[in-house]
Amino acid sequence: MLDLEDVLAARERVAETARHTPLDYSHTFSAMTGADVHLKLETFQRTGSFKIRGATNRIATLSEEEQEAGVVTASAGNHAQGVALAATRIGVDSVIVMPEHAPVSKVEATRNYGGEVVLHGDDYDAAAEKAHEIEREQGRTYVHAFDDYRVMAGQGTIGLEIMEDMPGVDTVVVPIGGGGLISGIATAVKAKEPDVRVIGVQAAGASSVAESLRKGERVELDGVDTIADGIATRTTGEKTFEIIQKRVDEVVTVSDDEIAVALTTLLERGKTLVEGAGAVPLAALLEGTFDYAEGETIVPCCCGGNIDLNVLTTVIMRGLVETGRYLRLRTVLKDRPGELERLVEIISEHRANIYAIEHDRASRDIAMNDAEVELDLETRGPDHVDALLAGLREHGYEVEVLV
Amino acid sequence: MLDLEDVLAARERVAETARHTPLDYSHTFSAMTGADVHLKLETFQRTGSFKIRGATNRIATLSEEEQEAGVVTASAGNHAQGVALAATRIGVDSVIVMPEHAPVSKVEATRNYGGEVVLHGDDYDAAAEKAHEIEREQGRTYVHAFDDYRVMAGQGTIGLEIMEDMPGVDTVVVPIGGGGLISGIATAVKAKEPDVRVIGVQAAGASSVAESLRKGERVELDGVDTIADGIATRTTGEKTFEIIQKRVDEVVTVSDDEIAVALTTLLERGKTLVEGAGAVPLAALLEGTFDYAEGETIVPCCCGGNIDLNVLTTVIMRGLVETGRYLRLRTVLKDRPGELERLVEIISEHRANIYAIEHDRASRDIAMNDAEVELDLETRGPDHVDALLAGLREHGYEVEVLV
Repeated sequence: MLDLEDVLAARERVAETARHTPLDYSHTFSAMTGADVHLKLETFQRTGSFKIRGATNRIATLSEEEQEAGVVTASAGNHAQGVALAATRIGVDSVIVMPEHAPVSKVEATRNYGGEVVLHGDDYDAAAEKAHEIEREQGRTYVHAFDDYRVMAGQGTIGLEIMEDMPGVDTVVVPIGGGGLISGIATAVKAKEPDVRVIGVQAAGASSVAESLRKGERVELDGVDTIADGIATRTTGEKTFEIIQKRVDEVVTVSDDEIAVALTTLLERGKTLVEGAGAVPLAALLEGTFDYAEGETIVPCCCGGNIDLNVLTTVIMRGLVETGRYLRLRTVLKDRPGELERLVEIISEHRANIYAIEHDRASRDIAMNDAEVELDLETRGPDHVDALLAGLREHGYEVEVLV
Repeated sequence: MLDLEDVLAARERVAETARHTPLDYSHTFSAMTGADVHLKLETFQRTGSFKIRGATNRIATLSEEEQEAGVVTASAGNHAQGVALAATRIGVDSVIVMPEHAPVSKVEATRNYGGEVVLHGDDYDAAAEKAHEIEREQGRTYVHAFDDYRVMAGQGTIGLEIMEDMPGVDTVVVPIGGGGLISGIATAVKAKEPDVRVIGVQAAGASSVAESLRKGERVELDGVDTIADGIATRTTGEKTFEIIQKRVDEVVTVSDDEIAVALTTLLERGKTLVEGAGAVPLAALLEGTFDYAEGETIVPCCCGGNIDLNVLTTVIMRGLVETGRYLRLRTVLKDRPGELERLVEIISEHRANIYAIEHDRASRDIAMNDAEVELDLETRGPDHVDALLAGLREHGYEVEVLV
């Protein structure tokens, strides 16, 4: 099994390609939770996520012949970029198989890091099959994304950095997809200081580890559904599951809405972008999904920041809606002069800002003389939304909240 | 006039409330420009912008009686938050007049920092008038946002930090709104090292200083129009204009599209959020708006990060469109089975991803048997867009690019 020596050995190798990322005190999250919160910001890591650590340790420890033959892997996201850059820096040739409809930005990034990209198949499974075919045919080494001790050891170097930069840490909170990150971190942290809690967080729509722990055996989900694509895995690894069972104190889950709120809060208040997977530890902290004491020192591991900007705009909207900061509603007006003005006046009295108004006389759902109005509003929070809706209803409007 | 002594004196006072912000090497911008780029990240400053520095120095240097009487100011944005938090930390009472339709998030932030917010009037001018009324009636000191030597001296501490953290700097690039920030920085930088270039950047839609320098006298614009609301001022100050004339080497302008691209690039590649005003120095650098030598050490001052998240989503879309990463187009199909499939096939062959399709048979603009289609596509860049459009036209489609 993996032990501290492996992680310590990984450290030097990893230091050549990966950054020692900052551990930043977060006034915002401390004020919101009463804990002493320090964010481990792997979002500022090279390639935008921690994956370069494990890939570096795996490729650097290959034999000379293996290095000469090159590596291959399959990935739709961060692992692809990590392997590509790690291989390039070490001077090893890499082939990365990505599903045909992988986001253009991730394909381009992987190419820019020096990986040869092969687009194949509709999903990750098809791409992985192709990658194993290339492994056999070309004699390349397959770099697994998580179920590999040398990969885990590389990720574990994050645990070493946390223990050094924050010796008094009480709790480390880590996202779980396949389990490579938390296996490495838990191994390092528990070996250094067995009393430090290690808490794993999964997306509720991809919670194979949480379910596996409940059943006492590794389960494979039929499907996954979450905005945190970096941890949207149907199952954990055999090796990682064993380590999680032994070294992780607790595994919890958070919803996509909770993830959106956490991501949006960090962006707005901390000016720092993380991807969905990088926001799950913050989501668990904000929602009180695990217990903690007042003033406890907590390190959420924000593991990456590679979020497609189109997805980001959707997540931001969701975060604003969830926190009562954005409201879209529909109502019906008598279609006569002054009616819209009256509605706008009421909204203005409640000090909500109007972003957009759509005024439609032709909707088929309403009576001939009425007009449907859709409004996009900026609001101050859940109480403000409630007060505004009550105010409109008091004035006789039937109001439907759209998002 | 302002001199180095004033800035040095400000330093200690400012240190108690403001952070010494990081000067981060940016691989992304260095690779894109061939320069050696280090970002001064005031976006991570308390209150999300540099304004707390000047406000602190102003309030800390008031007499005991003046402090007891409190301060007042008018602002729709960062200055409001800076004054509120600086006053609270020093133990001085503050009243901040904001226009009635100021963004809810900024009003709330100002309140949370301890400022008493008075909402008044439709625009900044009306709010300022009210603030001066309060100044007279209550005997409070008015804290000007930029045309005040003590405010400038506070902002100038950024220049001291840059010179210390990057002794070999060649060029410092600074946004200009009212001119307080660049006056302070230029004073500190030129006093320490006269050969370091100080370049000012304005939004093209609010370029009063650039025009004033051309005319040799201070001009006031009739109006402003830019997404960089933090620097959307109609005129510069008398004191700041004098300093800019003497100590700033060059003032250039950038367009809103260029600002959107810079902001989006820093967010996507650097995982760091800046507001429009914070992105203008990067925009000028990326666009080659000023000359620089290969390998020259350049410090763009990213002065703040307080951007309304709704505005941000719009800016991101604009950044993606400008860099050929997002394409919305309209075309017309014969309304018969298989036509849409054929179109989608061509797009797929060009490896563009389809985000959304809107298929409308009922549009009044087209013939009875035709159907209008609008497509939202993810593309790889300008060349990819051109190839895709050419491919569609080759197949006989009339294509209109919508954004």
